Amino acid sequence: MMVVKRIPEICATRLSSYLRVLKTLGERKLETISSEALADRINSNPAQVRRDLAYFGQFGRPGIGYNVEKLKGAITKILGLDKRWPCVLVGAGNLGSALYAYRNFYKEGFEIKAIFDNDPNKIGKAWGCRKIEDAKDLSTIVKQRKIEIGIITVPAEASQEVADKLIAAGVKAILNFAPRKLTVPQSAKLRNVDLSVELENLAYFLSKPR
Amino acid sequence: MMVVKRIPEICATRLSSYLRVLKTLGERKLETISSEALADRINSNPAQVRRDLAYFGQFGRPGIGYNVEKLKGAITKILGLDKRWPCVLVGAGNLGSALYAYRNFYKEGFEIKAIFDNDPNKIGKAWGCRKIEDAKDLSTIVKQRKIEIGIITVPAEASQEVADKLIAAGVKAILNFAPRKLTVPQSAKLRNVDLSVELENLAYFLSKPR
Repeated sequence: MMVVKRIPEICATRLSSYLRVLKTLGERKLETISSEALADRINSNPAQVRRDLAYFGQFGRPGIGYNVEKLKGAITKILGLDKRWPCVLVGAGNLGSALYAYRNFYKEGFEIKAIFDNDPNKIGKAWGCRKIEDAKDLSTIVKQRKIEIGIITVPAEASQEVADKLIAAGVKAILNFAPRKLTVPQSAKLRNVDLSVELENLAYFLSKPR
Repeated sequence: MMVVKRIPEICATRLSSYLRVLKTLGERKLETISSEALADRINSNPAQVRRDLAYFGQFGRPGIGYNVEKLKGAITKILGLDKRWPCVLVGAGNLGSALYAYRNFYKEGFEIKAIFDNDPNKIGKAWGCRKIEDAKDLSTIVKQRKIEIGIITVPAEASQEVADKLIAAGVKAILNFAPRKLTVPQSAKLRNVDLSVELENLAYFLSKPR
């Protein structure tokens, strides 16, 4: 039996990267991979790979490497990706639309079960097989559909209010794309993706005297 | 005269956050802000704010705070956002389309001067006032339009090849959305945004025994 220890968050992030590599290998029907090859593909080093994977049992065999399918299954399980996570998308703008259409989310176990907006011109419109719903009904619908993850793609000004509503409705984890730092209770998890900050960081790099 | 010292990258990221706060304040016509208020809005602490801002001169006055306009101007300059950065978008899928439509990019000084795809059904189609161009012409056009930043939104399999082509054509900084770690020369800058990893991290948090 596999004993699952608590692993640090940064390790969870690397596990996601390993999983992505293993999926590619699986498609190519490779049976094993060495810690060196795995490290190489995620710009890490073999010792780090072995340390990370040691957290949840013995999958490697010296001289042979890791069994791709077994390791994939184990990581999928430890990351909680062996179930489908019901998500809600708040903000039916361009970014929301791209995320909704982002096939990888679904493939990896995330299902957007509701889309909300407060713009009367958007409410009722269909994205694929799902209709954009009125933000006024957010609390009711989030509870009804047992939604656990909220994705925020509204403008900055509205983002904290949306986060508060999501948390009040029972959402436990939020992925925020609005360019504003949000506050959530300690019991909830928040990840921010600020696309402008990423570009600004590149601009800073380019404008530095070299 | 302001003496600009080298600042660490993490500080540059926080400067981006300060800038976003200052812009909001400017819209509301606030003249000054204290380090406490600034810290509060980016989930930091006043000492950190004062340390960060001390890197590039004296803008704060004890008991009064920072002058919003002056500080905004100084950060804009140090981040290299006082010019317009010519960018190229490679991969005209849903995510590419969202990024292209993301108004903040333009507002903050990033201009997408070319969009490429290798899909004959997409080449020639217009996004706003810009036509999707043939990926075959990437090198020529990137050089002609003096493009400095590349944004990669192609599938994982094609991403390294695109990165190589961009670098060969003179691009110095890349923002990669493809779910694969890329390799670029030391002289270039790479930032990765992996949207699935963000969601997986939330899933891991939710599935942990608590």
